[in-house]
Amino acid sequence: MSTGSLEALIQALRRLPGVGVKSAQRMAFHLLQHDRAGAQELARALAHATEAVKHCRSCHTFTEHDLCEVCADPARDASVLCVVETPADQAALERSGSYHGLYYVLMGRISPLDGVGASAIGARALLERAADGGVQEVILATSFTAEGEATAHVLSEGLKSLGVRVTRLARGVPAGSELEYVDLSTIAHAMVDRR
Amino acid sequence: MSTGSLEALIQALRRLPGVGVKSAQRMAFHLLQHDRAGAQELARALAHATEAVKHCRSCHTFTEHDLCEVCADPARDASVLCVVETPADQAALERSGSYHGLYYVLMGRISPLDGVGASAIGARALLERAADGGVQEVILATSFTAEGEATAHVLSEGLKSLGVRVTRLARGVPAGSELEYVDLSTIAHAMVDRR
Repeated sequence: MSTGSLEALIQALRRLPGVGVKSAQRMAFHLLQHDRAGAQELARALAHATEAVKHCRSCHTFTEHDLCEVCADPARDASVLCVVETPADQAALERSGSYHGLYYVLMGRISPLDGVGASAIGARALLERAADGGVQEVILATSFTAEGEATAHVLSEGLKSLGVRVTRLARGVPAGSELEYVDLSTIAHAMVDRR
Repeated sequence: MSTGSLEALIQALRRLPGVGVKSAQRMAFHLLQHDRAGAQELARALAHATEAVKHCRSCHTFTEHDLCEVCADPARDASVLCVVETPADQAALERSGSYHGLYYVLMGRISPLDGVGASAIGARALLERAADGGVQEVILATSFTAEGEATAHVLSEGLKSLGVRVTRLARGVPAGSELEYVDLSTIAHAMVDRR
């Protein structure tokens, strides 16, 4: 498979996360042999998205406008700010229907091993956003992983100094689970936070 | 993640083989957040490859020219034709340095469950190619899977009626393996074909 433009396509596909040389070859083969229309559609979608998608001025999530749909919605409660790592996390919260405030999307998490510090995830911009007008509570909804916890910890230090209320999503036993199969750390948290 | 062009990108990425909605979201997020240059490179590579890559007139593999490099090489032995399923299989044979004849790339294999029959893999074109001038031997190098074996069987029927010699790659114990860990069918084949 030494054709120039084919080799270039394989190399370009390898820039996708989780795609090695074998997967890239398989993808290139599939697109060229069975789905050239799909390849053209993907090319157009990539070109259009890289041009059109930017960040919301207020919450930093992906949007094509100056303000995203959520931030532009006057019905949302502007006194609460929920901090999430990614737009996918935000979408999960929205699907749950349990939150009606605004968001701040970090677009990452603190990860010292990868050289991602507080400045890389825009901690300063979050502090400015939280200090700016009516925000009374900031809910830290970063992941419950080591990196997500570290991110929440660093952010809470800065936020508390602003005088806003800082909360974290509750830890506990997930819906539908049997205690027998829940990990011990989760059970211990659920016991401490019982209500 | 309800932005129009972002959603379109996620849907387009799902057309890649082995990519579900979660992977597509992760890919779109990675490209837009961390590698917009990569996204643009991929868009260009896709557009260019779908335009430039066509099939070799003689062996049917991917090429940007009328004849691929191998078919255009006068040093190759034109009396032997090796039938493989994909350009990746052809590349593996080339890397082994054990073959100096020409190829015929099926770009698929017979798979009745997927509705892929002999006509879909161009069996007729292969017969014409094998009948067309100096081909004395056709080596069937399709996979040693059920589908690859079925493909080899169907093709050998047609090829034998042309009067050319039809061979199949040898089955046996792979280099570097200990007999203890080789599957029984492979050992049985190696025993029958001992030399």
